[in-house]
Order: sequence, then C-alpha cells, then structure tokens
Amino acid sequence: MTEFVSSPTNKLIKEVTSLKQRKYRDSLGMFVAEGMRIVEECAASAWPAEVCIYTEAAASRERTRVIIDKLSATKCRMVIVPEDIYNKISDTEQPQGIMAVLKKRQASITQMITQDNMSSLIVVLDGIQDPGNAGTIIRTADAAGCTGVIMLKGSADIYAGKTVRATMGSLFHLPVIEGVTPEELVSELRQSGVTMLATCLQKSDVYYQLDFTKSVAIILGNEGQGVSHELIEAANARINIPLVGQAESLNVAVAAGVIIYEAVRQRGNL
Amino acid sequence: MTEFVSSPTNKLIKEVTSLKQRKYRDSLGMFVAEGMRIVEECAASAWPAEVCIYTEAAASRERTRVIIDKLSATKCRMVIVPEDIYNKISDTEQPQGIMAVLKKRQASITQMITQDNMSSLIVVLDGIQDPGNAGTIIRTADAAGCTGVIMLKGSADIYAGKTVRATMGSLFHLPVIEGVTPEELVSELRQSGVTMLATCLQKSDVYYQLDFTKSVAIILGNEGQGVSHELIEAANARINIPLVGQAESLNVAVAAGVIIYEAVRQRGNL
Repeated sequence: MTEFVSSPTNKLIKEVTSLKQRKYRDSLGMFVAEGMRIVEECAASAWPAEVCIYTEAAASRERTRVIIDKLSATKCRMVIVPEDIYNKISDTEQPQGIMAVLKKRQASITQMITQDNMSSLIVVLDGIQDPGNAGTIIRTADAAGCTGVIMLKGSADIYAGKTVRATMGSLFHLPVIEGVTPEELVSELRQSGVTMLATCLQKSDVYYQLDFTKSVAIILGNEGQGVSHELIEAANARINIPLVGQAESLNVAVAAGVIIYEAVRQRGNL
Repeated sequence: MTEFVSSPTNKLIKEVTSLKQRKYRDSLGMFVAEGMRIVEECAASAWPAEVCIYTEAAASRERTRVIIDKLSATKCRMVIVPEDIYNKISDTEQPQGIMAVLKKRQASITQMITQDNMSSLIVVLDGIQDPGNAGTIIRTADAAGCTGVIMLKGSADIYAGKTVRATMGSLFHLPVIEGVTPEELVSELRQSGVTMLATCLQKSDVYYQLDFTKSVAIILGNEGQGVSHELIEAANARINIPLVGQAESLNVAVAAGVIIYEAVRQRGNL
C-alpha cells in the first residue's frame, strides 16, 4: 500500500531529513540512498529497503516505475510526497525524485576472506576524508572483483549521501565495513594470512614488482598525511606508484584504481 | 610595486570576477589559478602570472610570503585586497586568500611528440564533462610523465576554476591543448605515427594485452556516452578495462589512471 505524505512536520519526513547528519545516521542506524540509478541497484540487491520515497513526476518515468513496482512487492514502505517536500529532504543539488531509506549493515572481515584463503583482495581506507574519493574507491573495488572494503576509524562516513552516490550502487555489491581500529585490522588480517601492502612514498617498492596473486590487503591513506605510521610499520611490504613527471602525488581514488587493477592484471595473466 | 585595491567597482576586480564564466575566459583569453598550492606551482613554472591578488592575512603566512616575493620579482602586477573583496572574487568555498590571473596558452600537438618519435604518451579527452575528472586526469598524466593532454571540442573547460584546482598545479607542467576537432586529432596523430587506442567496452581487447611501449594516444570518452563513434572507428585499436564484479563502469578519472599507468609499467619494465 502506498501512503501519501504532504506535511513537512510528519515524523518520517523529519527523520529522513535528520539522516543528512552523521550523528543521526549513527544513532538511528539508518541511511539514505538517493537517485534513480542507486535505488535501482538497491532494488536489485539483497539489501532490503525499509522505505522508498518518491514524487509523482518521478513515478511517471518508466525506468523509475519499474523500480517502484519491484520495491512495492517487498516489505518496503512506499511513500509519495509532493515535489517541494522531496526537494526539502533531498541531499542532492538536482533531485531525481526517488530515494530509499535503509538500515546500515556491518560486514565482517571474515566475509572478505575467500574460501580457499588464497585470493582475497581487500581494500583498506585509513583516514580517507573526501566522501567522493571513498565512494569512488568502493565502486572501483566492486568493478575489480575485490572481496571487501574496510574503512578504518576516522575515515569518511560510508553512509553519507555523497559517498553512497559516488559508489554508483557498488555499496550494495560487496562487503563493506566501517569503524575498524588499526589493531583489529592487523590482528584479523595476520590471523587470516592476508599480506598487508601499505602505500608509502618512502622506502617502498614499485607496486608492480610485488606479487598480488596471493591474498592481499591494499592499504590507502589520508589525502594529505598518507597511511598512519602504525600501519606502515605493521604492513608486510610498502608499495609506491612511481611519479615520473612533476606532480607530487596522485588523487587517492586514482592511486587505488592503479594498484587494484595491477592485482586484476596479475591474476588474469595466471 | 604593490597596489591596494578596495573598491568593488574597480576595473580589475570586475574583470577577475567575470572570469568565473567561460564566455569571459574565452573572450578575454585569461583565467584564474586560485589557492596557495596552485599559485606556488604557477610561480615555480615558466608560465608567467599577469596579476597576483592576495589578502594581508594570506601574506602573513610564511609559505604564501615566499610565493609573493617570487612573483614580485617578475613582471606580475601585485594587488592587495581586503578580505571581503577577495571572498567576492573567489571561486572557492574556503578562500585561501591568494590567486593568480594568467593568459591562456595553447600548446600544439607537435609539442607532444617526443623527438625520437617513439615514446610519446598522449591522453585525449573526448567530451569529458566534469571539471573535477578533467583536472584529475591532467594531474595523473603529469604524474605518469605523459607528453601531453588533448581536450577535444565539447569537453569541460580546462581553465574553469574547478578544473585548474583539480590539476593541483599539473596544468603548469605539461602541454595541454583544447578545442581540437576529431578530424584534426586523427590527421595529426596519423601523420606523426602515434597509435590511437580508444576505450570502448564492445569488441575491444583488455588494455594490458596491448603494447604501450611505442608512441600511443589513449582516448577516453564522455562519462555517460563514452568515446564518439567517429573516433572509435578511426582508432588503431579498442581497449577495455575488465569489469570483474558487478559495477557497470569505472569513474573516468580512475579508468584513465589504470590505463596510463599500464603504459608506465610496460615502459619501466623494458
């Protein structure tokens, strides 16, 4: 059954609006996935949407209609709102008139270890601040068939609107975990026999000289400071991407792509 | 000699403000490079700044002072403005209090061909729309030692504030050219014996199976549509980045990094 909500003081509307702020996402354990493409990926995934909010204008477009029909067949609460209410709760500059509200999910590192324990490919984000970078790395990790993404404490919020949108739906495709401490990370990966490779400009090997055909975790650092000293010390090896020209560094999402796809190349060439 | 300008109706202030818009950048042939890091790279390059505008607060920071001293020793016009005027002409959300105004420069494709004619590495952007993506690709091309970046007609403006900032100063490091037509591109690259590789999901080879050790141009397409049909037809080969997981595509700046660094790997391993 579809509800119509037109009051800006409605409880749901106020709750969804509050989800723009991290503190409410944290306390309510919920987040918003917004935009046609993202909700489409959500509807196609095994991650159930709790609420779907949309406008009549959006519902009149065929592709959105298909998504709405799909979600209506689940336990998802379906809510139509007027354009002005939608624009108020939207976190985007050009609202597409459809969003899903979901419960946060926490994957475990164990889920990211392959059964043969030989070909895990894990990406670790240590303090990445920009939600666009974080989301783009999750998208790349999905594209490359990585077995999971771990966001350490102090990194951007996976569930921020901008991060979710930058994943282009990949958030729904692979195990992602947040709030892990460096100690937990090192202990769990060592126990599982996953080789930790930390990106680092000093005293490091060129990334393509390393062996990515066994289980590896690629650790990427903060945009300014790089990987924390602690993790550089704990890693099994340090890798760098050679800077041939005059640029002092690469964008971290680009660096992630370059290294992750070296793993794909080495594994594909086996 | 340093000038003080405090009137918002001053000719220079009005002209610099107008440079936020592409039509004025085009008609005046000028653009703005903003932020400490970018102006620093500009001051270290051979591309002369025409005007440097800064605030007293910015000048009180040592790193900015060094840049100001360096530019003062050139023919650059030095202008101090009050904070409120600076914030008005600034194109950033968190103004750093220093910007340079420069004349646009047009490189030539000939400049991008190495003397031995054997190791040119050119990046071609065919309709890339997002200034952040365009700037990030220029930064990556610089980092990888590419010999030039060509922006075809209909791509984002190289000289937009956001593009310039996303290059992190790399715009000043390597030849960049804009407004080239596909016909000019194909004719010039063929004449110079540069192999054209167009990224394309259909009927294409996996990128790492291609030979990047000769002179090559990597053609990247629009975020939604990809490379134009015309250029796919004209290219010597079509390449794709394998999508192992469920993501339907990669961010174009990430895709550029993956392919450009495969060239670095192949050349470094010679």
